[in-house]
Amino acid sequence: MPRALQELKQRLAEIVDLGKVAGLLAWDQRTMMAPAGAPARAEQLATVTRIAHEKFVSEEIGRLLEELRPYEESLDYDSDAASLIRMTRRDYEKARLVPTELRAEMSRSAAIALSVWDEARETSDFGLFLPHLERNVELRRRYVACFAKAQEDYDLLLDDYEPGMTTAEVRAVFHELKAGLVPLIAEIAERADAVDDSCLRGSFPVERQQAFERKVLESFGFSPRSWRIDETVHPFASSMSSDDIRLTTRHHETDLSAIFATMHEFGHGLYEHGVDRALERTPLARGASLGLHESQSRMWENLIGRGRPFWRRFYPELQEAFPEQLGSVDLETFYRAINKVQPSLIRIEADEATYNLHIVLRFELEQEMLAGRVALADLPEVWNMRMREYLGVDVPDDAHGVLQDMHWAGGSIGYFPTYSLGNIVSAQIWERLGADLPDLDEQIERGELGPLREWLRERLHRHGRKFMPKETLERVVGGPIDPRPYLRYLRSKLGEIYGLPGSR
Amino acid sequence: MPRALQELKQRLAEIVDLGKVAGLLAWDQRTMMAPAGAPARAEQLATVTRIAHEKFVSEEIGRLLEELRPYEESLDYDSDAASLIRMTRRDYEKARLVPTELRAEMSRSAAIALSVWDEARETSDFGLFLPHLERNVELRRRYVACFAKAQEDYDLLLDDYEPGMTTAEVRAVFHELKAGLVPLIAEIAERADAVDDSCLRGSFPVERQQAFERKVLESFGFSPRSWRIDETVHPFASSMSSDDIRLTTRHHETDLSAIFATMHEFGHGLYEHGVDRALERTPLARGASLGLHESQSRMWENLIGRGRPFWRRFYPELQEAFPEQLGSVDLETFYRAINKVQPSLIRIEADEATYNLHIVLRFELEQEMLAGRVALADLPEVWNMRMREYLGVDVPDDAHGVLQDMHWAGGSIGYFPTYSLGNIVSAQIWERLGADLPDLDEQIERGELGPLREWLRERLHRHGRKFMPKETLERVVGGPIDPRPYLRYLRSKLGEIYGLPGSR
Repeated sequence: MPRALQELKQRLAEIVDLGKVAGLLAWDQRTMMAPAGAPARAEQLATVTRIAHEKFVSEEIGRLLEELRPYEESLDYDSDAASLIRMTRRDYEKARLVPTELRAEMSRSAAIALSVWDEARETSDFGLFLPHLERNVELRRRYVACFAKAQEDYDLLLDDYEPGMTTAEVRAVFHELKAGLVPLIAEIAERADAVDDSCLRGSFPVERQQAFERKVLESFGFSPRSWRIDETVHPFASSMSSDDIRLTTRHHETDLSAIFATMHEFGHGLYEHGVDRALERTPLARGASLGLHESQSRMWENLIGRGRPFWRRFYPELQEAFPEQLGSVDLETFYRAINKVQPSLIRIEADEATYNLHIVLRFELEQEMLAGRVALADLPEVWNMRMREYLGVDVPDDAHGVLQDMHWAGGSIGYFPTYSLGNIVSAQIWERLGADLPDLDEQIERGELGPLREWLRERLHRHGRKFMPKETLERVVGGPIDPRPYLRYLRSKLGEIYGLPGSR
Repeated sequence: MPRALQELKQRLAEIVDLGKVAGLLAWDQRTMMAPAGAPARAEQLATVTRIAHEKFVSEEIGRLLEELRPYEESLDYDSDAASLIRMTRRDYEKARLVPTELRAEMSRSAAIALSVWDEARETSDFGLFLPHLERNVELRRRYVACFAKAQEDYDLLLDDYEPGMTTAEVRAVFHELKAGLVPLIAEIAERADAVDDSCLRGSFPVERQQAFERKVLESFGFSPRSWRIDETVHPFASSMSSDDIRLTTRHHETDLSAIFATMHEFGHGLYEHGVDRALERTPLARGASLGLHESQSRMWENLIGRGRPFWRRFYPELQEAFPEQLGSVDLETFYRAINKVQPSLIRIEADEATYNLHIVLRFELEQEMLAGRVALADLPEVWNMRMREYLGVDVPDDAHGVLQDMHWAGGSIGYFPTYSLGNIVSAQIWERLGADLPDLDEQIERGELGPLREWLRERLHRHGRKFMPKETLERVVGGPIDPRPYLRYLRSKLGEIYGLPGSR
């Protein structure tokens, strides 16, 4: 290994360590920290982010990247070293345009905004949150201004979550997605009564939910040697290393939504856990993009977790856990209930079809917020109006409206579209999986998830962030992003459940 | 404020942030982290420690300290600014002699050793731990070699925990302590049967212990806004800021030792919580030394927590929690039981008198380990021999012997003596407290701990680390360290319990 590469790796390892440390500071804030710890935590996050940024944008990293150019060109494009140099160069060219103080301030403000959001959401008080949202948006505008002008300002934010994808591309994909979804949802709405999901509401003691989820997770591959799961207000997954995976979830006594949230976060965790250990402590040791990450979480949540094979295996155990609620509900009724399509208020509890309309709404709003086309003070009003327009639901209060998600509090603007990109990609991967593992359904039903995990690891997870998202997707499914498999999947699954014309 | 002071404070704030971050990494490792996360965690700790050290020993800090000399001399010695400059200069002059790589390696090795120790302790396998202990000791020798020769090598380690105190001074204090304790323990041994502590052994469901401790902690001043408490293998307290206090404890179904461990850690937490907020994000925002820290933990554990007034208030609630075990045990029997003097294997469960012999043993061994006068491979044998000699007990296995404490795994050599220093100081403070708050016992019995907390805050806690430990002690008790109040306290309390001649 050339000395310059050795030095680059050593410097990057330190920066990656700091990134993971920032991840722990955030995880701890969301799961463990006493509330009065928030102001100091914001400073700590700012300090760690500032130092990591400073170290990354240093002249030395630039010099090493230059020095390594000929070496990189001599290497196989797919090699770890070539990928490391190539991806680091891209990151570097972006990061060095951002002043360290701005980067630190984005971190500090987000940490403060998150702790205020907790309270604002609890009391449904948008006014309390507004100044912090204003600060976050203002900082993103300053961030955007650091770069050469893109086709659209939003491109520059989106690129942090879905590198290489433009707003126009997302818009085109979402247009096709919407064109398929809106009539499907309308057809289903005419048969809304065909599915009764009353069995999902009632009393589900949290400890019993947790015990059930634990069994599910263990069958998926969760092991306490490398994983943990905790409660939080807004579930997320993170990792302090490939062998230190942190899932979070949130339980309600009155429904079973946590089961799906838990499976969702497991998908994220498995991706991080599956990265080749040779990439540990490099910037490649994580998912290729949030879209690809969401393809994994949404796959475990929906394609597996809302599928018949999975419940053929696990429904008897669920019935055992909640005999009063589910003892006399048969598998088919339960399966239909968890797949009921019904416009609703909360994104993370939405069904697979209407979910994407929640995303479209946020994607549009974010562009308008960034451009100043919507005044932030008016957000609740605009939110509620659009919810009525897109989903036909009335928002009773901001806790169930504009305050429901933590993303804007955490400063993540440009993140939301990746959820629907993930939905789309999950179905593309699923089609490919079905071709390679023809008895996948039977394996799931038998609880044999080894071959599925191995396929995902071999085809996707182990590469981490070695390639750009588009390259990664091309390698996994052999083509670019395409909403058609997802629309086919939904029409087939929901068509059968609702007895739509033309369904099998 | 001069510009140089402003700059110094800004630089120190960043370094303090990193210290707190390292604290979180360690806390998380001990309470939350999945075991397979250990290797990456060790790197993260090393990185954070390395950067903090690098930043602290920089030329700029030295230049600022020089520049601030005249300003410091113009200030009141007691002022925050003068203390900050003075104490930082002392730290700086020490730290800049230590190579950054050594500092990072001490951190990395300790993190790895801690995770191995967990397993070694569980399986009572000293051989597994030995190479890591060797590494830790070797690194401390290299650390000692960084400094100008002291009277004794151990002085240089001790100074990290009890700044300004020498091994010779500790030896003298311990000599006096031992001279008082050994005859007291012998006298008690002759009346060993006078106290029956069988009521403390049995079945005490952990959740009920936790609920009881929660009530105790809340009456002490624990509030979930700024505090939390978690389970761990070896209890400790730490803080991520003055408003983010983390206690840990450990429960056994078969005894009530956790109650005292919890009160102990509370004492540490209260000290950190009581530091003047004006010192936040400075290196002064923590206890003056570990001896003073232990004076607080041992005070809450023993002078309060093993006292009659406290149990007059809380014993009925404890009986309610464990009616089968304690329902028919009267307060006096219980009080005598929790104060029974009986040589035993485990330091943290030892009674107030024999506890100090555990410390003397460790203090002597540490000096021998550092000097190479005892081969580390022989430690178990030497440990067991001395336990027999000092305490008259037979060590059944290393888990109950040399592997019981986490300190050496964590690289802390020179820490142990501070426990007995703390015992001694706690009694000095208690005498002074009794003079200032003549109805302290009645207040404790009524659960009115406000005046006690306020006295401690005003006299000790708020100053944080503004003064050297000796100066701090002088301010609180008006004199130097003195074992006599502690010996008086023990002789009076235990004399009464055991009916020793000359006791009231």
